Amino acid sequence: MTHEGDVTASPDFGDQARLDASLSDLARGMHLSGILRTANQVREIQAAGTDVLDLSIGDFSPKYFRIPERLLRGVEKALESGATNYPPPPGLLALRKAVSGYVERCSGVRYPIESILITSGGRPALYAAYKTVISPGDTVVYSVPSWQNDSYAWLSGANAVEIEAVSENGFQPTLSEIAPYIGSARLICLCSPGNPTGTAMGPETLKSILDAVVEENRRREKDGNERPLFLLYDQIYSSIRVKDNKHRYALALVPESAPYVMTMDGASKAFAATGLRVGWLLAPPAIARKAGELLSYVGAWAPHAEQAGLTELLNDPDAIGEYRATMDAAVHERLDVLHRGFAAMRDEGLPVDVLCPDGAIYVSLQLKLKGKRIGGRVIEDNEAIRSLVLEKTGVAVVPFQAFGLMRETGWFRLSVGAVSMDEIAEVFPRIRALLEQIG
Amino acid sequence: MTHEGDVTASPDFGDQARLDASLSDLARGMHLSGILRTANQVREIQAAGTDVLDLSIGDFSPKYFRIPERLLRGVEKALESGATNYPPPPGLLALRKAVSGYVERCSGVRYPIESILITSGGRPALYAAYKTVISPGDTVVYSVPSWQNDSYAWLSGANAVEIEAVSENGFQPTLSEIAPYIGSARLICLCSPGNPTGTAMGPETLKSILDAVVEENRRREKDGNERPLFLLYDQIYSSIRVKDNKHRYALALVPESAPYVMTMDGASKAFAATGLRVGWLLAPPAIARKAGELLSYVGAWAPHAEQAGLTELLNDPDAIGEYRATMDAAVHERLDVLHRGFAAMRDEGLPVDVLCPDGAIYVSLQLKLKGKRIGGRVIEDNEAIRSLVLEKTGVAVVPFQAFGLMRETGWFRLSVGAVSMDEIAEVFPRIRALLEQIG
Repeated sequence: MTHEGDVTASPDFGDQARLDASLSDLARGMHLSGILRTANQVREIQAAGTDVLDLSIGDFSPKYFRIPERLLRGVEKALESGATNYPPPPGLLALRKAVSGYVERCSGVRYPIESILITSGGRPALYAAYKTVISPGDTVVYSVPSWQNDSYAWLSGANAVEIEAVSENGFQPTLSEIAPYIGSARLICLCSPGNPTGTAMGPETLKSILDAVVEENRRREKDGNERPLFLLYDQIYSSIRVKDNKHRYALALVPESAPYVMTMDGASKAFAATGLRVGWLLAPPAIARKAGELLSYVGAWAPHAEQAGLTELLNDPDAIGEYRATMDAAVHERLDVLHRGFAAMRDEGLPVDVLCPDGAIYVSLQLKLKGKRIGGRVIEDNEAIRSLVLEKTGVAVVPFQAFGLMRETGWFRLSVGAVSMDEIAEVFPRIRALLEQIG
Repeated sequence: MTHEGDVTASPDFGDQARLDASLSDLARGMHLSGILRTANQVREIQAAGTDVLDLSIGDFSPKYFRIPERLLRGVEKALESGATNYPPPPGLLALRKAVSGYVERCSGVRYPIESILITSGGRPALYAAYKTVISPGDTVVYSVPSWQNDSYAWLSGANAVEIEAVSENGFQPTLSEIAPYIGSARLICLCSPGNPTGTAMGPETLKSILDAVVEENRRREKDGNERPLFLLYDQIYSSIRVKDNKHRYALALVPESAPYVMTMDGASKAFAATGLRVGWLLAPPAIARKAGELLSYVGAWAPHAEQAGLTELLNDPDAIGEYRATMDAAVHERLDVLHRGFAAMRDEGLPVDVLCPDGAIYVSLQLKLKGKRIGGRVIEDNEAIRSLVLEKTGVAVVPFQAFGLMRETGWFRLSVGAVSMDEIAEVFPRIRALLEQIG
């Protein structure tokens, strides 16, 4: 085991900037995500001793959000019983059946096994969905702000059409905004409840877009166009709804859209289990199969024991119901206090605006500080606001620029997954104090 | 939680063959791997009641190979303590430190943290390594048979140069075979101990290739050529050596190769932990960083608790030493009996040949049956031999064609990870009986 002979040596890797410039087109085109830039600065500020209220993390702190007991014990039991070898490439058959049952209970749609692909969290499902339908140059339509569509479009070599969604619609796109591009598009991407917005697309809007996709595909078929228009529906936050209006599955609203819709979901957000790496893609069998083949080469499989543990949980509606009640209440009280606090500031005439969240773990907050002055300096853009807020108040938020928005509208994502109610209460006096310094 | 309202409905996905033909260039270009084709037929034959001796699985059965106790308890402890949220994108800092220590103990090379990227098993490290250095049209050189280089080259749009390695060299390539392509190549890929061959590249050969890479890069630098020649070293089986000659790390042999070498390794094979999904890439920091960014989009992260559990194991050389002794003995006795059994048949004059394995879990076996007759039918190719052997004897093996070899040379991969010693003993009479029927 231990090394014998050679002297221990640290490698000399040479000039890394020069090496970086010599990598593939793809590697050179990638850039640090805005979320990670925030995360890096949070670490620096914490290291310097500042008490950070971290609303920038799109994740759950296990201090406040634990995975379901049934899931935990299920994974442990599976490890003990030897679920340590490769899972089958499309996922454990038992888990695919359990997902089918879970989806049916949630939506009334009964997906067959061959339309369910298990993946290492939700991201591989998105990556593979893009790669499976997009050839370089194909047009993808999505709204901004939205989570990583810009990156997936770029990684696929797509021609990206970005629709700037507006706050009046909860930053969700509408059919009329999408319609001009439907004739030339290959893929439309939706995310509801939305990351970064925390807002859901209304069922009428979703239905109108799905109807338009079906209609467009009828037209293409009639015209002998062999390449359909697809729709990718990121519903990773589908379980976390804070109001009475339930999440609607695409195929429940428009069954005729089945050949064209790919739906991504998973355990990551539903069960505060982002580190367990289990997600799924619901798609026509031909797409699920090809996406699975790609992900086999990539190796983005969910771990075996976690798949087995999740199978147990998904087959236990009572355990899920109990967990949902507790988790949703904890998310809801955080979102509610955060929303109401900023709404009160807005109503007082302070330069903020805020959207009422429908779900997920996010609140959209606008800080109308562009062009204002602090300490003789003019605040230029969202990045300057983000940096100022973090430095002066210790409150970490992520600008919508990290989600593909270009215009400097002053909107930010606030996440409640990693903060306590006490920490949220602390946010308001700090932001208020900052706003009072700004002229 | 439960669905109310709509009637449960099964989706109509339409014509899947037509849909399949409408997918992306990438999706349409992918094809079922030869290994999966074997696996599918094994399942069919088992379902029909045949007792299969399955030497086709490149994995461990937990019946015979369990993960280390220390690893199991470490994962459980981590789950209990809340290691259920996202790990940091490049992997847990503690695990990257533990990998550094482990690699140093194995090789004498002390990789810094920023040169270590944690991945979801070994596959994402290979995928990301290719994608990080290869732009479409760049030349990749690898030998066949080898594991999935053909697929990774294709997925990267590379110009693939395939060297047909010969049995006399244990199916490992030599410098003289690679040399003609060094001037125009962007990447050379090696795998030792080899999948599918079970043979290791000798340190002299490895050193000669590494020296040539360093020399070529000196030439390119002098010529003002900004694009280096890289080497990707798949050593996922580095821990499993059945003879005294230890695995040699590239940087231990040729320290000057550090800026150009990417090494893939992991827990998957070393600790019979393929289902835990933890691997790593050792690479110059600029490459490790870009590969990590790509894999963040892909989501091919190792699960959090498994990373924490592996950290404990890697920091415990005694636990590793004990595990190695037991596991290596179990692998060795299987490889040894399999090799000796077929060597005896060869020495009797039967139409077989076999290579003496150096490690991994594989034996290379040649069945010289091409052109021979059975039941009036001429045996055409390796696929026919594979299918015949499976049908007539229930012994499942994988032809080298599944590893990129074109020529029908009659060589097969036999894997010992999922069979007992009794099952191996059963292989010989069955194959012998078949050979006796062949004219």
